[in-house]
Amino acid sequence: MLELLSEHACFGGMQRFFRHQSSAVGLPMRFSVFIPPHADGARLPALFYLAGLTCNEETFMTKAGAQRVAAEEGIILIAPDTSPRGANIPGEAESWDFGVGAGFYLDATEQPWAKHYRMESYLHELRALVLEQSPVDPARIGIFGHSMGGHGALTLALRRPDLFRTVSAFAPIAAPIRCPWGKKAFTGYLGADESTWAGHDATALMARARAPFPGGILIDQGLADKFLAEQLYPEAFEEACAAAGQSLTLRRHAGYDHGYYFIATFVADHLRWHAAQLKA
Amino acid sequence: MLELLSEHACFGGMQRFFRHQSSAVGLPMRFSVFIPPHADGARLPALFYLAGLTCNEETFMTKAGAQRVAAEEGIILIAPDTSPRGANIPGEAESWDFGVGAGFYLDATEQPWAKHYRMESYLHELRALVLEQSPVDPARIGIFGHSMGGHGALTLALRRPDLFRTVSAFAPIAAPIRCPWGKKAFTGYLGADESTWAGHDATALMARARAPFPGGILIDQGLADKFLAEQLYPEAFEEACAAAGQSLTLRRHAGYDHGYYFIATFVADHLRWHAAQLKA
Repeated sequence: MLELLSEHACFGGMQRFFRHQSSAVGLPMRFSVFIPPHADGARLPALFYLAGLTCNEETFMTKAGAQRVAAEEGIILIAPDTSPRGANIPGEAESWDFGVGAGFYLDATEQPWAKHYRMESYLHELRALVLEQSPVDPARIGIFGHSMGGHGALTLALRRPDLFRTVSAFAPIAAPIRCPWGKKAFTGYLGADESTWAGHDATALMARARAPFPGGILIDQGLADKFLAEQLYPEAFEEACAAAGQSLTLRRHAGYDHGYYFIATFVADHLRWHAAQLKA
Repeated sequence: MLELLSEHACFGGMQRFFRHQSSAVGLPMRFSVFIPPHADGARLPALFYLAGLTCNEETFMTKAGAQRVAAEEGIILIAPDTSPRGANIPGEAESWDFGVGAGFYLDATEQPWAKHYRMESYLHELRALVLEQSPVDPARIGIFGHSMGGHGALTLALRRPDLFRTVSAFAPIAAPIRCPWGKKAFTGYLGADESTWAGHDATALMARARAPFPGGILIDQGLADKFLAEQLYPEAFEEACAAAGQSLTLRRHAGYDHGYYFIATFVADHLRWHAAQLKA
């Protein structure tokens, strides 16, 4: 059952927040949807946005200012939460970078996480739900995200380019198997055997892909981002794209940090970039 | 001493958060400033934004998406907190509509509030501080706000049109002496003698003013705002403006509620409206 928690008129469209019982996660999950003004019966392009560590389904909709351009371009925006809530696994809320608020958009295989921490399957469940409930054109869906959600957008798109036609990211964790956040999360969710990790690492996935995004990939990265050197590795992803023949636009912005003032500054570019391809 | 708490590049400008010891309030206060990109030595127009009940100095800067247009127009944005914090008056945090987060932008005369709850004097202290610390042109300052902050913007501008050249509001508490929020606040801060209240009521102030804003006043009001009928009384302010010969543009928007999705939708109109006058 889909429960409407609240709705708010916004830029001529409607911002809605929902809760539903997820079969993939086995718990109630929340998500948000922005529906732009549109003609009756129209099927619209849609963008999934995956948020970063500690965020939830509200963060992007309240802080990024994306609805203005989504309304102009006629694009639906969908944002899930960043992890299951209420799994009641001991210690799940003790770290800000693992467990609650830090699901890393993958299906855990290690206990005790494997039962509920199934965010990749959840995304596909949510995609099906949104297709059923909203005027989304299934052939025109893109995905983007920030930090952990940039990792999620790149990896989910690389794992299923048949489902996600376009992909972009803000300051993504671009090579999680090399960085502390990724090593901690993958050890916890996937286990100590690192051979299973590459399937959830954007850089490793790109190395074995065949340039699946003909319209390119767009990444924005702030150069005053305090996580850049230790956690993000956009240069590794850049090298993998070059080796794979995948076109990538990686924009480096002097002075910008890791937060939503950075995202708000460049979100219109991302929306228009996705729109140009999804509406072509 | 002015303490920089954080700063973030944003739309080519800089978003900053400060704390300082306020002499008007007698406590540390926080405020935020957005400085748009500008030429060295330039003095810029500025807009003070006053937030509503339960908000703080961050709310507008994170949720309204105003920096984009402020950067384009070259306008400085300044947002104070909504009340003193840490006065330690018994019960001050027990109500969401009185005390902490609910200073109503006036100087309390009743004990125990009169010592610290001096938000009108604080605004003038902050204005002087910002003039000293930022490239603000003192002759080109406007003010706007939301709900309780719309009341604040209208009343402070009507009390000192020599200091605030332009004024606008989102869903203001336009006649507080008639509504439950206003009666509770004014009784607490100003006392039971209602004869002292009119000096802090936008509608009453307009009735005795001489159309002080030649460029008009702009108000946006959502018609799905759940506080409209009981708390806001824009029609009373509209009548007072008509009687006073004060030009007013009161826009009523079907479907919009009281929150920041409403404000974000129309904030660009407000910024451009102020800019057109302040830059004329």
